[in-house]
Amino acid sequence: MAAVDLIELWRGDMLESVHQGHAVVCDPSGIVQAWGDPEAVIFPRSSCKMIQALPLLESGAARAAGLQTQHLALSCASHNGASIHVREVGDWLKARGLAERDLRCGSHMPGDKPEAARLTCSGLSACQLHNNCSGKHAGFLTLNQHMKGGTEYIDVDHPVQLAGKAAFEEVTGETSPGYGIDGCSAPNHACTVTGLARAMAAFAAPGSDMRGDAMRALVQAMCAFPELVAGEGRACTELMRAMEGRVAVKTGAEAVFVAIIPEKKLGVALKIRDGGTRASEAAITAILVHLGVLEPSHQVVEKYLTGDQKNWRGMVTGQLRRAAGFPA
Amino acid sequence: MAAVDLIELWRGDMLESVHQGHAVVCDPSGIVQAWGDPEAVIFPRSSCKMIQALPLLESGAARAAGLQTQHLALSCASHNGASIHVREVGDWLKARGLAERDLRCGSHMPGDKPEAARLTCSGLSACQLHNNCSGKHAGFLTLNQHMKGGTEYIDVDHPVQLAGKAAFEEVTGETSPGYGIDGCSAPNHACTVTGLARAMAAFAAPGSDMRGDAMRALVQAMCAFPELVAGEGRACTELMRAMEGRVAVKTGAEAVFVAIIPEKKLGVALKIRDGGTRASEAAITAILVHLGVLEPSHQVVEKYLTGDQKNWRGMVTGQLRRAAGFPA
Repeated sequence: MAAVDLIELWRGDMLESVHQGHAVVCDPSGIVQAWGDPEAVIFPRSSCKMIQALPLLESGAARAAGLQTQHLALSCASHNGASIHVREVGDWLKARGLAERDLRCGSHMPGDKPEAARLTCSGLSACQLHNNCSGKHAGFLTLNQHMKGGTEYIDVDHPVQLAGKAAFEEVTGETSPGYGIDGCSAPNHACTVTGLARAMAAFAAPGSDMRGDAMRALVQAMCAFPELVAGEGRACTELMRAMEGRVAVKTGAEAVFVAIIPEKKLGVALKIRDGGTRASEAAITAILVHLGVLEPSHQVVEKYLTGDQKNWRGMVTGQLRRAAGFPA
Repeated sequence: MAAVDLIELWRGDMLESVHQGHAVVCDPSGIVQAWGDPEAVIFPRSSCKMIQALPLLESGAARAAGLQTQHLALSCASHNGASIHVREVGDWLKARGLAERDLRCGSHMPGDKPEAARLTCSGLSACQLHNNCSGKHAGFLTLNQHMKGGTEYIDVDHPVQLAGKAAFEEVTGETSPGYGIDGCSAPNHACTVTGLARAMAAFAAPGSDMRGDAMRALVQAMCAFPELVAGEGRACTELMRAMEGRVAVKTGAEAVFVAIIPEKKLGVALKIRDGGTRASEAAITAILVHLGVLEPSHQVVEKYLTGDQKNWRGMVTGQLRRAAGFPA
């Protein structure tokens, strides 16, 4: 099967651009609905951070380190590098006797405009705490203290990453066909879109075992602190706020998006084939509305899917549209 | 015919994302080579600014206003809003007895980092001179003075826009099937990829008539002032510098790219179906190398097409690749 058209951009009354992709909805027994090729192999990128965080909890490292709910949210985050994120991750490291220099995620200017302006206008550089993955890496470091591993915790054969890979293969139900190096230098293991949706369904219907407890804690943390998972103005934060703690969602680079819907025991995963983020945001919004967990009249639906596209003078230039057959 | 895969993004040794599109190479007699659907209808967006500038020259307005080569380059530009662009367009308007308030392009923060930092750190807002289309609009205003039209020169039925549409339909050889409103509020008329390539071939092999003179002057201006057409670090500027004045290239929003190659009497037009700019930049680079006008070993080829993709710590994460069969 091939990718199918999911999201279109119209200018005036003419089609201008089209985004193709794959999307799968799973319940604990398997595929409920799919578009495109459910067996397409993808890199989940940051959309699987809640999977990568499982060993942090299951090992007992999180409890031993006294991590709180906000730390668990940050371990699943692709944050904006706003002052709140930088402070929380910095405090976390300090409490563990660690420092920014122990991170291996690299530095980039934060997406948060006030913090980026503060740095620019002070002549300061961004540090690794600003990296959108610094919370995940603080989690890696906390797990590494518990495992007593070496400093290069991002190496693919490091115990921290081996633990992450084992959890990933267990919850996706697949042997990963390979890995790549992510923007933050950690390995990112490939899986099918169905494998990722299957994992999200497991988070949506966790068992009564230790893994289930870890899944519940991570989903609860994401839903409790949507502003830590991404940041002001970002899709993950705004969609989770709109659904008032009932659904956890997470984006990944190159246009991956997942959703965990406990009340329906459903997991969702989608990948836009061209990596276009506007389309992954629009597509997950469309699926959340389709599944009845996001009000179609909510302003976030207008922002990410149904609202007019406007130009620099505020003139309406076009719209995003769902392609025929998507999602229903 | 459908769009075909043109540019791929690989992570490690696995395919992560794919961009489909259409591309056409024309000489004055027609299609020389094509990928995807040459009859696909697209919005050329800013890639057709040299067409939109034809009436400015053909009307005599440019000569009457004493416009110089750099003004013609700016009339074809999607510039960065750097200080050089803002100053040149501001001086142009002032010399015509016009001002920033006469523009109808709207304001946005400039892409040029030093100028954006200057504005941000001074608490200043961007003005319409910073708009990437302000040179095109200065050209519209200069033509409008000559035509003695009304102030709303961006209205689709305004004489300035009617003149632009007539030139557009003549050089594309098509009756435009419709228009949309561009980011800068001017109408943008649709055409086929072949129509746009046909127009670029006409610019590459201009006749000895008044239109030919106008085409030659515009191509010469773009090649003489590549830094005015886009700006430092931008693909148009860097590709034109690499080809040392022999080829004019121009990008348009939603991943359109064109090239004018006088020495081979060839015109090129391409559109990435998903609107992804990284792919339109890579694809035009691949075609320019394929046509023998850009050295494959030049550093811009490495930057836009063949070089490693690196992450925040400088680790190699993957590559862009030409899809099978593209361009040869």
